[in-house]
Amino acid sequence: MGIANNVAIIGVGSTRFGELFEQSYSDLVVDATYEALADARVDLKEIEAAWLGTAFGYTYHPDANAGTSLAEPLNLYPRPVTRVSNYCATGIDAVRNAAFAIAAREYDLVLVVGAEKMRDVSPRDSLVGQYANYGPPVRSKGRTGPGQYALLATRYFEQYGNAKEAMAMVAVKNHYHGTLNPKAHFQREITIEQVLNAPMVAYPIGLFDCCPTTDGAAAVVLAHKDIARSFTDDYVLIKGIGLSVAQDYFHAFFRQDNDFLGLAASREAARIAYRQAGIQDPRHEIDVIELHDCFTITELITYEDLGLCEPGGATRLIAEGHTRLNGDLPVNTSGGLKACGHPIGATGARMIVEITQQLRGRADRRQVQGAEIGLVHNVGGPGAVAGVVVLGR
Amino acid sequence: MGIANNVAIIGVGSTRFGELFEQSYSDLVVDATYEALADARVDLKEIEAAWLGTAFGYTYHPDANAGTSLAEPLNLYPRPVTRVSNYCATGIDAVRNAAFAIAAREYDLVLVVGAEKMRDVSPRDSLVGQYANYGPPVRSKGRTGPGQYALLATRYFEQYGNAKEAMAMVAVKNHYHGTLNPKAHFQREITIEQVLNAPMVAYPIGLFDCCPTTDGAAAVVLAHKDIARSFTDDYVLIKGIGLSVAQDYFHAFFRQDNDFLGLAASREAARIAYRQAGIQDPRHEIDVIELHDCFTITELITYEDLGLCEPGGATRLIAEGHTRLNGDLPVNTSGGLKACGHPIGATGARMIVEITQQLRGRADRRQVQGAEIGLVHNVGGPGAVAGVVVLGR
Repeated sequence: MGIANNVAIIGVGSTRFGELFEQSYSDLVVDATYEALADARVDLKEIEAAWLGTAFGYTYHPDANAGTSLAEPLNLYPRPVTRVSNYCATGIDAVRNAAFAIAAREYDLVLVVGAEKMRDVSPRDSLVGQYANYGPPVRSKGRTGPGQYALLATRYFEQYGNAKEAMAMVAVKNHYHGTLNPKAHFQREITIEQVLNAPMVAYPIGLFDCCPTTDGAAAVVLAHKDIARSFTDDYVLIKGIGLSVAQDYFHAFFRQDNDFLGLAASREAARIAYRQAGIQDPRHEIDVIELHDCFTITELITYEDLGLCEPGGATRLIAEGHTRLNGDLPVNTSGGLKACGHPIGATGARMIVEITQQLRGRADRRQVQGAEIGLVHNVGGPGAVAGVVVLGR
Repeated sequence: MGIANNVAIIGVGSTRFGELFEQSYSDLVVDATYEALADARVDLKEIEAAWLGTAFGYTYHPDANAGTSLAEPLNLYPRPVTRVSNYCATGIDAVRNAAFAIAAREYDLVLVVGAEKMRDVSPRDSLVGQYANYGPPVRSKGRTGPGQYALLATRYFEQYGNAKEAMAMVAVKNHYHGTLNPKAHFQREITIEQVLNAPMVAYPIGLFDCCPTTDGAAAVVLAHKDIARSFTDDYVLIKGIGLSVAQDYFHAFFRQDNDFLGLAASREAARIAYRQAGIQDPRHEIDVIELHDCFTITELITYEDLGLCEPGGATRLIAEGHTRLNGDLPVNTSGGLKACGHPIGATGARMIVEITQQLRGRADRRQVQGAEIGLVHNVGGPGAVAGVVVLGR
């Protein structure tokens, strides 16, 4: 019982990620869905229910609030569609809720779509604009992503020494991976010097330490494992899935157990997913990872939160090339959020697409040879909501 | 397998519904939750996961977007909390997703909270303000709730004759029920004449045909039926639950099968729930109903959509008193949306609270004697997303 080993991913699809001014939110949803359906060799009519992961629809379209935003462009009527919204972990949580319904045998075949349309909105109405202007000056004003992760980075530097160059290595690695991904927002290499010399956004986070603002959608077709084989032999199983809502990093001042060197939600979500999947040594049992590199420092601290190295060991992991495509534990082979961008609700689903393709041996120039176990990680809120999924054959 | 007969409601709670300027969103969440926990005799620490139903948080608080909005006031860390948003069916859909997780045996004991804080917001920033001002003039401008349901009402009048007085009877009935509910927003009786002579909002919908704008929260504790008895003998089972996303009533011009006399989503959601619960004759098998009377016409057409009478028979059902508290099929004994108000995400959960108490014989002055099977119905979007739950012992 439960999700673990009972739910199969039988098809995946995604749009190109980027500034897609020529495509509407609905266009993105349709394109991602039909690619996933074709991959699964499933007709839309066979889909019994769907989940839509969209976090911030209200910033660009007052109707992107509900299951209707998926049902309408797909003409999915009258099937049930739930909208899930959980900050940057929205994509994984949409998959999680869909997987509950499959594991409960309420449905055998469902669709999950993550989508967000973030570019064609004025700065004033944008997510960043809203957060930058909201709240009292001391506690919240200016509470933008870079501003918050800058605090985490300086704390990390204080404990382990300056990691600005290691952060730059993350950006260089993920941009390189992006050159191998025709759907990435950024597809050109950058150098360490470019990252280090880029304009500062919030010290020590410079322009090239930040993921861009991007449009995109990704889709996943889930089936109960007992019927997966009737569609395809080339499916992937959800071996474990964990979600955790922890106290916001930046407000968790009163917790004795908060070392401020990582995100409690990531650690707890990984603990749940590892337990379900029977992972005891993630560093050696996992073959390929997509994790939430919204900023380069986030990739480093997430290495530690996921137990891929000892505390403070992240800078060595990146510097020695372990997490590069030809390393022994490739991370963000898609290019990550850094090169793909981060359409909030789409990101978790896009990561699951990438890892599914890796485990099927279909990742083209980004293929990690012999990958059998993969991991997907989202964190947002910031630091408050995290999801971790372990996938395998 | 599946939800039906596997998921028990072991505790319920709700705040007073009304203009709660003295309470924050978080206050409402806490009050509803602790009432439900006390009712279930469950300690918050025992709760394994939670779902939050909030539809329009962005109109009053940019942080009411995610599971954090429930985790923070309850200090529920690090447990997983999903936020579900599905227009006016948000409350039922949050319960539905939580029930999937229970039925899948991922968790045995979970919390669902529906909450919305709608009063302390300027008209410009309110939901009504946003919809009234959004979109191109012909298709969408002025697409407010009353404006849209007025179209449905005039279509109904065209087919079956003027039902303005029957609509008024719905308002009078639900206001009367509200006088018996100490948590209702409106607790005073009104007369047919008052309803008929009230200022017109959008013909034929007058002021007293509309539910008010209200703050409130409601909470439900769900357990797998196999462990329910370890907490209480006084639990209620989910016998069936259906969700449907149908084409928006007001845009479904091209569907041959749309008679514009009801809402396809309600009909489909009821069909699913009845099938799961084994209901063949809803008029005689169901003992008490909470349904979505956002406007008085909505209660009338929902009688027909739920199969409680033949098409066109709704006016007779209300006029003959069948749906009044002392009738043979009491509807909206709580006072409904008309007297309780409609904090969007809270409404479905509040209805489940009412029906649970009816089936336990704990509805005080509103008690329907011998009630064994109850029904809850939400519809919104408008007319696009509907949920129906059948509850029993």
